[in-house]
Amino acid sequence: MSVTIDCLQYCNWSRKIFEQMREGSLDAVHVTIAYHEDFRQTVERVSEWNRLFQEHGDLIVAGRQAVDVINAREQNKTAVFFGFQNCSPIEADINLVEVCHQLGARFMQLSYNNQSLLATGCYETEDPGITRMGRQVIAEMNRVGLVIDMSHSSERSTLEAIEHSSRPIAITHANPAHWHPALRNKSDDVLQALSETGGMLGFSMYPHHLAGGSQCTLESFCQMVANTAERFGVSHIGLGSDLCQDQPDSVVEWMRNGRWTRERDFGEGSKAAPGFPDQPAWFRDNRDFPTLREGLSHVGFQQSEVNLIMGENWLRFFEHAFSQNESSL
Amino acid sequence: MSVTIDCLQYCNWSRKIFEQMREGSLDAVHVTIAYHEDFRQTVERVSEWNRLFQEHGDLIVAGRQAVDVINAREQNKTAVFFGFQNCSPIEADINLVEVCHQLGARFMQLSYNNQSLLATGCYETEDPGITRMGRQVIAEMNRVGLVIDMSHSSERSTLEAIEHSSRPIAITHANPAHWHPALRNKSDDVLQALSETGGMLGFSMYPHHLAGGSQCTLESFCQMVANTAERFGVSHIGLGSDLCQDQPDSVVEWMRNGRWTRERDFGEGSKAAPGFPDQPAWFRDNRDFPTLREGLSHVGFQQSEVNLIMGENWLRFFEHAFSQNESSL
Repeated sequence: MSVTIDCLQYCNWSRKIFEQMREGSLDAVHVTIAYHEDFRQTVERVSEWNRLFQEHGDLIVAGRQAVDVINAREQNKTAVFFGFQNCSPIEADINLVEVCHQLGARFMQLSYNNQSLLATGCYETEDPGITRMGRQVIAEMNRVGLVIDMSHSSERSTLEAIEHSSRPIAITHANPAHWHPALRNKSDDVLQALSETGGMLGFSMYPHHLAGGSQCTLESFCQMVANTAERFGVSHIGLGSDLCQDQPDSVVEWMRNGRWTRERDFGEGSKAAPGFPDQPAWFRDNRDFPTLREGLSHVGFQQSEVNLIMGENWLRFFEHAFSQNESSL
Repeated sequence: MSVTIDCLQYCNWSRKIFEQMREGSLDAVHVTIAYHEDFRQTVERVSEWNRLFQEHGDLIVAGRQAVDVINAREQNKTAVFFGFQNCSPIEADINLVEVCHQLGARFMQLSYNNQSLLATGCYETEDPGITRMGRQVIAEMNRVGLVIDMSHSSERSTLEAIEHSSRPIAITHANPAHWHPALRNKSDDVLQALSETGGMLGFSMYPHHLAGGSQCTLESFCQMVANTAERFGVSHIGLGSDLCQDQPDSVVEWMRNGRWTRERDFGEGSKAAPGFPDQPAWFRDNRDFPTLREGLSHVGFQQSEVNLIMGENWLRFFEHAFSQNESSL
């Protein structure tokens, strides 16, 4: 029996969306709970999710380990794993890495677009790689089982994170830059190093990451997946849709601007188109995972390969990623 | 009548030290109130100083503008100006720049040894210069009158801060690297750019910044001041002693390690000598400012030049540095 995992969403959560997850047979989802939030604000997001788990316990369940995905599927629920798109939740305190893991975090990006205390973001002009604190935090994340995510980081920082990390890392939501050149998409060098070290790439369906944007066809997307599988292997790819369903445009403004500027940054958008772009027609929301399965079959993937891409690869990754590293105890 | 200003101290404050300031005729001092403190902890430091001002109001007074130095001297008191050695007090929030100024902060370093959100510290291997957020924060510091201090920053970041800042910047406590090569001391290029833009260098008497360390002689120090004056002009130099009187060694460990590492960093010290080094014999504490005046006269400075170095240069700098920039209102 196959499993479906989406390794990045940031929706405006509601019962409607949780029901759509069930309709689309989504067994697990990695949800962002912090972009620029500090530790205390991140705790508020955890509290909000605690309430959601209580109120919608018939549809969703907290995900902490790989086995929670299997259990959720058996109960016809979706397991929800927490992640941060920035290192802001640990502030300048390395000890908060373990505390955040205790609160349920399983992924943390080392930087989000800008330079952080740990690594460089993809919108900076310069990329000095992993910082002194970054090397310390990578070791600590490795120890406690908090996955390093470099989706919004820059080239050198990403390569160095792969090199310094003793455990495979993830790029939860991005596409190959050779398909669609964008600051957020990843070079062949990065994809090569990622797959060689057992890391995972989650394919994004966020229009700014797609060739053709909102007009990108399912076939073009699936063909890109096929090309990536051919070049880097079918075992290190999965989904990371970056679905931001029902979010107001104020949210994308927060993502881009946080509290770091008094001007207005448009990120991947522009002054003329500052808001969220339209979803591609073939991935409107969580009900479209079966559409994706069909699309992947159409471009020539075997059923077993479709299963790997749709969730089994992420599940295998989860099995080794989230536990405390006993060798470093 | 001359004025004496020390533009950096971080003592374990007590009535004894405030009395020694009066004994040494110190009219104003820039004190560090944060190394790795976040905003909330910085507010605690402000509260502690509020109490000190109340309890020792016969010896010290809060310094906010240049005129406070003159008023303090007339009342036989020392004006105390606040500064941060790192940007940790503003966390990731540019709006805290103005709030910190409202709380009395007049200096902020953009980075302390390590990479920060704004700039690179002098102990990093790479130095990418001022970050995206750094450029925004520099503009905001320029607007509200919070002085940019690059004492613990690296070469390129310092040069770029000088370039991006519309107001003169400060290196409150460091010495020329050509006299004593140390990661914390400054290159000729930096000193040239600093003085050409009206910036200020405060000479440090912290042993790790001195040729010969704790054994450095008064004559060697004063000769270095004379050489610096000759090369970069006598108008852009002053004192920034870096006096850390009566501090336990746990404090220098906090300065070096904050919360960024789970290992132990020895900074300018070493495993064999991890603590604070001994002060040079000619600058034990605040009572030795007259000794310094004599030393400067001995190496050939005119009395008027001694007065500039001992405080008048800093006073002139203060006059233009701390007010809101009306042109950017």
